[in-house]
Amino acid sequence: MCRWMAWLGQPVLIEELLFKTQHGIVDQSLHSRMGAEPTNGDGIGLGWYGAGDGPAVYRSVAPAWSDPNLRELAAHVESPLFLTHVRAAIGSPVQETNCHPFRHGRWLFVHNGYVGDFQALRRDLMLAIDPALFPEVHGSTDTEVVFHLALTLGLDRDPIGALERTVGLIEATARERGRAPLVQGTFGVSDGTCLWAVRYATEGRPRSLFASADVETIKGLYPDNERVARLGADDRVVVSEPFADLPGVWHEISPGTAVSVRHGGVLEERPFRPAAARGTVAA
Amino acid sequence: MCRWMAWLGQPVLIEELLFKTQHGIVDQSLHSRMGAEPTNGDGIGLGWYGAGDGPAVYRSVAPAWSDPNLRELAAHVESPLFLTHVRAAIGSPVQETNCHPFRHGRWLFVHNGYVGDFQALRRDLMLAIDPALFPEVHGSTDTEVVFHLALTLGLDRDPIGALERTVGLIEATARERGRAPLVQGTFGVSDGTCLWAVRYATEGRPRSLFASADVETIKGLYPDNERVARLGADDRVVVSEPFADLPGVWHEISPGTAVSVRHGGVLEERPFRPAAARGTVAA
Amino acid sequence: MCRWMAWLGQPVLIEELLFKTQHGIVDQSLHSRMGAEPTNGDGIGLGWYGAGDGPAVYRSVAPAWSDPNLRELAAHVESPLFLTHVRAAIGSPVQETNCHPFRHGRWLFVHNGYVGDFQALRRDLMLAIDPALFPEVHGSTDTEVVFHLALTLGLDRDPIGALERTVGLIEATARERGRAPLVQGTFGVSDGTCLWAVRYATEGRPRSLFASADVETIKGLYPDNERVARLGADDRVVVSEPFADLPGVWHEISPGTAVSVRHGGVLEERPFRPAAARGTVAA
Amino acid sequence: MCRWMAWLGQPVLIEELLFKTQHGIVDQSLHSRMGAEPTNGDGIGLGWYGAGDGPAVYRSVAPAWSDPNLRELAAHVESPLFLTHVRAAIGSPVQETNCHPFRHGRWLFVHNGYVGDFQALRRDLMLAIDPALFPEVHGSTDTEVVFHLALTLGLDRDPIGALERTVGLIEATARERGRAPLVQGTFGVSDGTCLWAVRYATEGRPRSLFASADVETIKGLYPDNERVARLGADDRVVVSEPFADLPGVWHEISPGTAVSVRHGGVLEERPFRPAAARGTVAA
Repeated sequence: MCRWMAWLGQPVLIEELLFKTQHGIVDQSLHSRMGAEPTNGDGIGLGWYGAGDGPAVYRSVAPAWSDPNLRELAAHVESPLFLTHVRAAIGSPVQETNCHPFRHGRWLFVHNGYVGDFQALRRDLMLAIDPALFPEVHGSTDTEVVFHLALTLGLDRDPIGALERTVGLIEATARERGRAPLVQGTFGVSDGTCLWAVRYATEGRPRSLFASADVETIKGLYPDNERVARLGADDRVVVSEPFADLPGVWHEISPGTAVSVRHGGVLEERPFRPAAARGTVAA
Repeated sequence: MCRWMAWLGQPVLIEELLFKTQHGIVDQSLHSRMGAEPTNGDGIGLGWYGAGDGPAVYRSVAPAWSDPNLRELAAHVESPLFLTHVRAAIGSPVQETNCHPFRHGRWLFVHNGYVGDFQALRRDLMLAIDPALFPEVHGSTDTEVVFHLALTLGLDRDPIGALERTVGLIEATARERGRAPLVQGTFGVSDGTCLWAVRYATEGRPRSLFASADVETIKGLYPDNERVARLGADDRVVVSEPFADLPGVWHEISPGTAVSVRHGGVLEERPFRPAAARGTVAA
Repeated sequence: MCRWMAWLGQPVLIEELLFKTQHGIVDQSLHSRMGAEPTNGDGIGLGWYGAGDGPAVYRSVAPAWSDPNLRELAAHVESPLFLTHVRAAIGSPVQETNCHPFRHGRWLFVHNGYVGDFQALRRDLMLAIDPALFPEVHGSTDTEVVFHLALTLGLDRDPIGALERTVGLIEATARERGRAPLVQGTFGVSDGTCLWAVRYATEGRPRSLFASADVETIKGLYPDNERVARLGADDRVVVSEPFADLPGVWHEISPGTAVSVRHGGVLEERPFRPAAARGTVAA
Repeated sequence: MCRWMAWLGQPVLIEELLFKTQHGIVDQSLHSRMGAEPTNGDGIGLGWYGAGDGPAVYRSVAPAWSDPNLRELAAHVESPLFLTHVRAAIGSPVQETNCHPFRHGRWLFVHNGYVGDFQALRRDLMLAIDPALFPEVHGSTDTEVVFHLALTLGLDRDPIGALERTVGLIEATARERGRAPLVQGTFGVSDGTCLWAVRYATEGRPRSLFASADVETIKGLYPDNERVARLGADDRVVVSEPFADLPGVWHEISPGTAVSVRHGGVLEERPFRPAAARGTVAA
């Protein structure tokens, strides 16, 4: 059920991380090792910050491993901050409007996981979206609804807090509908300057999430590696599952944790606690 | 903004009407003469009744004129009742879930036209859909919402009445939201036995709609035409705009009119009057 | 590198074999057990004989597991003879013209495997295609070239003989170009009346191939199975790998063997021996 | 039968010329005024020089007017030299490998027009391609064959001369096959530094081709235009048909003419004379 990765650091050709890395995200689209399924072949998305206003989003229903346009873009676009997502659909159609990342203004959003009983909750949750944002929902995934709820609940002022309120709202709505609440997964968010990531499951083990170590540590481990030598102090990668090269440099994010990554190599962690909330079910 | 056609009669290879007719619907996808636009290249749909349970629906984002699969299906599927639709998108994405016909159980639904100010009304109208049907809405067109409202308001018992209630509801909702109500277009509906069509606009001239004359009339006009000779008493075609061959056999449906077509060559017309209704805007 | 299946027997809804069978071909597109790769997600093709002239061919670049049109067709088309193929591309682009089955007149052709060093041999082999057939080559797979060579060398008079000559020609061409010859795989061919299949590798173990047992044997093994009870004396399935239900009813075709299946439940085997030939390299 | 445009000049966001220009190429995909057909909806291609090695090529079978990815790329990629092509297919399938521009190394190639009787000549012409280049032909258009012939005949040393030899070869081959030779159209070529364009027809009027005037002339005509004020001395556009804004600034290229555009605003014209040649038909 999906894999994603995010880069924040010096500007790089995107292919460095998508195609020139062992067991990178494109390889994970075909051979994921830690996902719920090995195959993530139901579409691809790439969002990046660079030239032009706001982030660009490329989305395709082709599997990542066979999409020639993804390969072209990756080989010819440089960016200091990008997110890539490969999708394993669970119920909703394979169409571009269901591919991540989702975008609003400067914001990009990706998700690996699912909202339990989403079909039963979808109407309630869509009603809780700010009516001004409602027309922007074009697809049928749970993620797009989660994103628009987070925007409704203050994503642009307080990303982690908004996600805590969103998850709290979804869990409360499920309970009020008599369902066992279940929000499962990892989230990635950016505004083009910072990167936030969350690992959380209402119950059970959440999907995996890792961040790369700080660059000094990596250089200490691999003093002679040419790729490592090019890393700058700014560079961080957040991933659903580690790339294969450079074992030892990956730091697993604990369940129930939110991460903030900023330029300068800053990575901060804090607990992720869904905000107690009343759900969306009208009395 | 779209063209459609429907056949009810003897079983025929679908290509007879899609590809072997002068200025048939596939030609209309590239060169419509009476539509709002000459080009209807934003996807294709074909729904037919035949083998298997309920209707089949083939939908593709390819333009009808270049889709090899449409040509294959048309040349190899026989059906006594089918609807085809070529789309000209106005705002919503080109994706299969936005292609007509829409389906629910035995029902198929196509539309040519639009709901005025749909983005402003979409949320209210989606809330008026029966919650049990809500999860079936996968795309982002006005038509899909109209269809699910009609299902909510009794399509399966009284198709024309349900459409009158649906249009009345949409117009009332627009007024309550302070918008000038505007439902524009033609609708085609079938349950696999009968075919219903509506031509209506809240204001102004509605999109065009035609039905073929009864077979005796056609045979009188074209006593020596080989294709006409093969027509049976059952056969009727309803179209957004006439095929080019057989001029004189097309009967224009008047604005504000609903048509019912049944086996035996029966075609009945009645006025189409949106039912006065309160809209969906909560007090 | 691809999986395929073929049905010859009583007319059935295609979904019976594609979707209502444990570990059928659609499941094999995602989770092949005996293929070179578990994933066969680079396009789908379905060719069937039924209404209209000659076989119909539906081809799509969508993975079989997520293609809603494939599901629709399978649920609404009946056929007494059809072939389905799921593709794992090895080098050539994912496009409809590279999807199997390939068609010429009444003939359909599928392949699982590859021609070794194809890029180096492609020009020579294309020159050996009957110039009258040359314009029909629209894609860039080895299979399409193999098919047109077989048509050139008498497929319509002697299918197995033509394939023996084709494989012989390819092997000779490779040798003359100083390459180690390698034709690897299984082939499936039909003219709408009979079905032929070949399992062969120049060297090493060829891709797997199985045929279902005769119906009496299957009924003896599963006297109480409802699906088995519906089988008629005519019914045979040829598959790259067995469906999961009904263990014991699958007969492995030996390497270097050609199979002919005809109505009446007839299945005959004979050795497959590439015909010694001069290759296509000009002196 | 296709429209194309090329930009050489200061780096600009591609959308400036694709979407922010009246009657730009994307509008021409739906409403061409000077083409053989108003609709060029059979795929889109964009090739640009910028970051990474060599040119990038984005190709899609979606019509240009509805492709969200094209809009994204155009809004977020800057380039000093790019070519865009919208396709109207005449016979060959709608697939990415049939979309222009075609690429080899640093070279990009687009075409508007056709080779007469191409199906009859295709085999001969493909045989004339350098065998080392043969494996790069993945599609089935005449243009891809023309490009690989031009590469075979010295495109990288002498682009116009190579095209003269290519056209001469095609015409001679047609004559030797007893066909009336006909090469019709315009060609656009770039190596990332210069831009070459040709307008030619063996017989009759060739497809239209225009170049923008030098920047001083444009500024003289439109002293108060804000977009014009931003033009630099380097900037040139070559187009199948003029954009609607800035009438008077377009210079029609004469039939039988080749154009070279270089940085510095240099535009040179010379006659285009196909080189007399023997064709490819073996004696």
